[in-house]
Order: sequence, then structure tokens, then C-alpha cells
Amino acid sequence: MNSFVYDIPVKVYFGENQLGHLGQELRKFGRRVLLTYGGGSIKRNGLYDRVIEELRGAEMEVFELSGIEPNPRIESVRKGAEMCKEHGIDVLLAVGGGSTIDATKFMAAGACVDHDPWEFFGAGAKPIERALPIVTILTLSATGSEMDAGGVISNLATQDKLGRMAPAMLPKVSFLDPTLTYSVSAYQTACGAADIMSHIMEVYFNTNKDLFMLDSVMESLLKTVVKFAPVAVAEPENYEARANLMWASSWAINGFINGGRKKAWSCHPMEHELSAVYDITHGLGLAILTPRWMEYCLDESNVDRYVSFGVNVFGIDSKLEPMAIARESIKRLSEFFFSTLGLKSTFTEVGIKREDFAQMARKACRYGDIKGFKTLTPEDVERIYEMCL
Amino acid sequence: MNSFVYDIPVKVYFGENQLGHLGQELRKFGRRVLLTYGGGSIKRNGLYDRVIEELRGAEMEVFELSGIEPNPRIESVRKGAEMCKEHGIDVLLAVGGGSTIDATKFMAAGACVDHDPWEFFGAGAKPIERALPIVTILTLSATGSEMDAGGVISNLATQDKLGRMAPAMLPKVSFLDPTLTYSVSAYQTACGAADIMSHIMEVYFNTNKDLFMLDSVMESLLKTVVKFAPVAVAEPENYEARANLMWASSWAINGFINGGRKKAWSCHPMEHELSAVYDITHGLGLAILTPRWMEYCLDESNVDRYVSFGVNVFGIDSKLEPMAIARESIKRLSEFFFSTLGLKSTFTEVGIKREDFAQMARKACRYGDIKGFKTLTPEDVERIYEMCL
Repeated sequence: MNSFVYDIPVKVYFGENQLGHLGQELRKFGRRVLLTYGGGSIKRNGLYDRVIEELRGAEMEVFELSGIEPNPRIESVRKGAEMCKEHGIDVLLAVGGGSTIDATKFMAAGACVDHDPWEFFGAGAKPIERALPIVTILTLSATGSEMDAGGVISNLATQDKLGRMAPAMLPKVSFLDPTLTYSVSAYQTACGAADIMSHIMEVYFNTNKDLFMLDSVMESLLKTVVKFAPVAVAEPENYEARANLMWASSWAINGFINGGRKKAWSCHPMEHELSAVYDITHGLGLAILTPRWMEYCLDESNVDRYVSFGVNVFGIDSKLEPMAIARESIKRLSEFFFSTLGLKSTFTEVGIKREDFAQMARKACRYGDIKGFKTLTPEDVERIYEMCL
Repeated sequence: MNSFVYDIPVKVYFGENQLGHLGQELRKFGRRVLLTYGGGSIKRNGLYDRVIEELRGAEMEVFELSGIEPNPRIESVRKGAEMCKEHGIDVLLAVGGGSTIDATKFMAAGACVDHDPWEFFGAGAKPIERALPIVTILTLSATGSEMDAGGVISNLATQDKLGRMAPAMLPKVSFLDPTLTYSVSAYQTACGAADIMSHIMEVYFNTNKDLFMLDSVMESLLKTVVKFAPVAVAEPENYEARANLMWASSWAINGFINGGRKKAWSCHPMEHELSAVYDITHGLGLAILTPRWMEYCLDESNVDRYVSFGVNVFGIDSKLEPMAIARESIKRLSEFFFSTLGLKSTFTEVGIKREDFAQMARKACRYGDIKGFKTLTPEDVERIYEMCL
């Protein structure tokens, strides 16, 4: 237990008015930049113009790839990797949320190899030894991609949504300006909050015990989301709320909280199958799944973890019976997602159908049973899906 | 508020049996290493032999500088910097606690300039733009020097103890093996705990408000020390306790918890004058000073901070009156230092005399009043010293 390597050399500019450092940071890597972004929102809210102004000021030569999808697709990655090769790109600048940043990571890696970037994924995946340098400007607090080395890409042709990590893809510099998330809708803010909480809970609910210090830090991060997500939903331009969510989202998944824990995550693989087939928002899928997964896994042997969670995150009275605290903690989390944040609470409401459960469950376990907080077979996954109807 | 740059590119090998990576990490920087350490304890406990074995295995050419003092002195720094120049050192390997690591940082910086290293300190200090690469093996959980860019050096000739930070001095790699702290005495463990807590409290007690998330993380770190320092004192070979203290000590001062807070620290400058004149253990001085400083600063305008501290770190009932919680929190902290950890509680007991107060207070404010949680003039500092008698 608790042997690990900590190595997160991402430089972060946090706060308002930090974009003035963008040009100087990019120029460290060269002059030719591939600017990547999603839909047109950054054009509507003025961010695009500010970025272009900085790039011009730094005398960068700018190439652009827009239209990166939510649940980003391998086609975008292929296109970006090709553009990097064609134009001799020195550095990639991703402006957006996790989808844009994730896709950009694999463009940067794809630019350094001759094979199809989809070969980075799945069984027999090719190694990722190099990537062009990546700089990010974050516009959505959720995935933590701005400070981690991983990403998830969808292939609609094969109905796969697969993740991959590689230190080479860690962003060199990330700009985290909370005001850039003011325009994020209440719905996307809520989904982002669910994603952040899930990243922490996937590690917190883990039988592979580690440092108390990290458990306590995880509770701090969870409390931060519980406190500020509703504020951000109600007051989209509340700086304090946006800032707390933004920094919490990075620390939820940059690796710090893991310490030496090695167990697999559970809800993320179950959710990725939903998004792969139905293209629903990742955070919404996680919000629906997580309380059911907690309920499914709860037993006398692991009740202590639920007790710590309920008492330290939701302030449930520690003098109650452990099982009562555990059940109350699941109830509080459900209320938080479905009442406080207003997310839909069932697969039925979002159109996910029973007929796909067996196949999705099989794919969720494509690498074998999910050896997480509780080992889940494809049958277990199907049962959890059923609880979500 | 809360605009900042986060940039801590230190690679940490945490846990038992990580020293096998030492050779490969050092070789990235070259072949000629200056090994620095303090008294002979690393020879007695076998660590010296293990390190030498790794260095030989990596075919490093080893130069040694031992005898670095607690409250390390400028003479050692001068000697180390000279050795670096004389032998064309590529990388410095500091094996020890904060004293050895601090001194090694300024040797590494001193090796890159022509002037006396003491010119890095005080008014009109010379810039620190470069330093040779530094690798550390930590043997004492206290100062956090293994993951930060600063250090403190004493000059007994001028009775000065002065700190300095510079990103160039950030260690490249640090090895944190909790078992290497098993031999730390109960007294030094207690002093280290007080130092860790002070690093956090200097930031936590700060009128320059910042992210709730970071306040909550600070409470987590403080709870970690309160929980595990007594365990480590009672059971020196308790891995869990040593591991939690070790990782908490790094995160207490590597800059993460600061966020955008800018206010000055208070207890550290007051304590440095004690150590400069009396050469007492830094953590002991902090333990004696901190509760008195809290008492001196407490008023209606800042009582909320004490309430958060008391409730969230020491579990004091939040339903009590704020002033009662504040006073109770000071009492609990005093009990923790002086009863639970068994540290001496007064200047009188450690031989610090009233006759030196005026001069030490003047020196503590050498750069002007201490603009921290509450602005302290030399007269305020003297009064706090008097409360410690």
C-alpha cells in the first residue's frame, strides 16, 4: 500500500486575466499552433477573439480545427493529427472542455506516429511514447483533462468509447479562468459536478486502503462540489462558486488523490457504454448510475466507507447505526443530483432501453470483470443498469 | 483574490523500496554527484550504505559534504558551493531533513555565481536565476523543503536566520520513504509536527480570503497531523503514521494550499529570531509561539477563522458561542503541543530570556511590520514573546 510516483508537471495559470501569458507560454514551443475547439460558443462569447489577439501578439502562425464533438470522435482526432503533420505544427492549443482537450491529446500523439490514432485504443493498443506539446484553455469544469494525462474517444462505427492514458499527453500549461465558465448552462454545470464527484468517488470507494490524508482531502473536494455546484447553477456568474468548482475538478483526477490505490474504477466504464451507444452527457450518465452502484455494492464488509462518506461529506449524524448512515448517504447523494441539481434520475427519462443492457454490460467488462470497490461481472453490471430504469 | 500560478514540477517517489530508482534519476543530470548530509545518523542506520550502493550501481562519481548543521549555516553553504565548482558537480543529492536540503539548495545556487552565497539573503539580495539540479532523500517530516523552492540559512556571525525562495532551487526529484523516519526521536517527531501545522496555519489564518476548497484541504492536512503525530511519537515504526505525516509535510508548504493568498507569515519570522540567537529547534519555537500568537490576535473581527479551525480540525461543538469556540481551539492546540506531544511550553523552560526580546522583535520586523493575519509591530512581537515566558 501507498507506494506511488507523484509527477504532475503541469503549469496552471488560475484566475481572471491570466490569458496575457498565453503568447509567451506558446512561444516556448515554437511558432506554428493548431487551435482546436468545439462548437461556436467561443466565437459567440468573445473568447475566440481574445485568443486570436494573443496569438497574433505573439506572432504565432495559427491553424484551426473546430467542430470537436461532445464525446469526441476518432474522426476529429484523425483530422487533427493529419493537420499537425501537414503543417508542421509545433504546439496544440485546445480551447474548451474535456471533449476538446481529450481529442487534442490524441491529435498530439497521433501527429508523432504513422498509424491510425484508433490503434492507440483497445486490446493490443499501440504505445504512446511521444506527443506534441499541448496547452489548454478550459471552459468547463468537469473532466479534469486540463491537468491529467488521459482522454476518452468515441468510435461510433464500432460503438466503442475508450480511454487511454500516457504521460506524454499531459498538458504543458493550462489556463483556468473561472469567468470562462459563466456561460456554461445550469444543465452542463450540474453534469460537470456529477463528473467531478464521480472522479473522486471512484477512488474514495476503494478497498485498496491508502493514506488517511488523501481520504480526508477527497472529502474536502467532495464538500466543495456539494457546496458550490448549486450556487453555480443558481448564479452562473458567481466567481467564488465557479472558481472552487474549477480547481476542484482538476484535483479530482490529476492523480494526487490516488496515492498508491490501484483498484479499477466502476461507474466510468459502466457509463462509457451508455455514451457510446446513446451519446448522452457523460456526467448525467454518472449521476444516474452512481447511487444505484453504491446501493448494489453496500454490505456489512464495506459499510464503513459509506459511513465516512455520509458523515464527512454530507454531515450525517455519526451516532446513527452504520447501515442507517450508509443508506442515508445514498439518499442524500441522490437528492443532491436529482433534486438540488435537477438532473434526470432514470434511464427511462433519458431514453436508454433495457434491450441494450446485455450488450453494454458485456462491453463494459471487455477487459474482464470490473475489479473495483466490489468486483462486477457483466451480470452485476446488467443488474445495476436495471436499477436505473 | 485567487489568481495564482501553480507550478510544482517535482517528481516524488513515495513509499518503501523506491530507492532503486535513485541511480536512474541522478544519471539524467550527469555523472558527478555531491552527496550532502548532516551528522552521522545515516551512517548508523544503514541509509548511507544503501545510497552509496545505488550510486555505485549507476556508476556515479561521488563527492561528499557531511556535517550540515541543524539550523544550517552559511559556512556549510559556502563550502558546498566551492566543492561544486572545484569538482564540476552535475547534480546534488541531499540526504536528510530540511536543514540538509535547505543548505543544499543554496550550494546548488551558489555554484552558479561568483559572489558569496550570503549575498542571496537580506536587503539588496542578489538574484537566484540558476541552480544545479537537486535530488533529495528525506529523513524527517517537517520543513517540506523536499517539494518547495525555499530554504532558511543561519549566519551566527551576524545572528541572522534568513529565508529565500527561487524556483531554480526546486528539487527535481525527491524520495519520500516513511521507513527512513522510523529512527526520528519522539522529540524531533513532535517538533516536526509543530512545524507542519505552523506551515498550514500561517496560510489558514489569513485575512486574504481565497478558495474554500483550499481551506478545507488545509483542515484535512491539519487533521492528519493531529491524528498521526501522537501515533508516531508512541510507535516510531508505525508505517501508516509516518507515511501520513510525511506526505502531509510536503503538501503543507509546496504552495498548493496558498492559492492566491498573499499575506505574510507571522510565527515563522518571530521564531527565526529565537533560533538565530538560541539555536533551538525550529518546531519547538513554533509550538511555543503559535498558541500565544493566536490569543494575541483574536478579536471579534477575526473570530470566524478560529471557529472554523476549532470545529473542523479539533471537532469542537459548532453550537457554542464563537468566542468560546475560539478560546477552546487555542486551548486544544496548546494541549496538543504541550500535553499530547510533550513539548516544553514556555521560553523559560528552554532558556530564552527577556533581555533579548527587544532586539529579536526588531529583527523579526527588519523588513517592516509583519503584515499577516494581524499586522504586528516590533512592540506586538515583544508582547507575544512576553506571553511565552
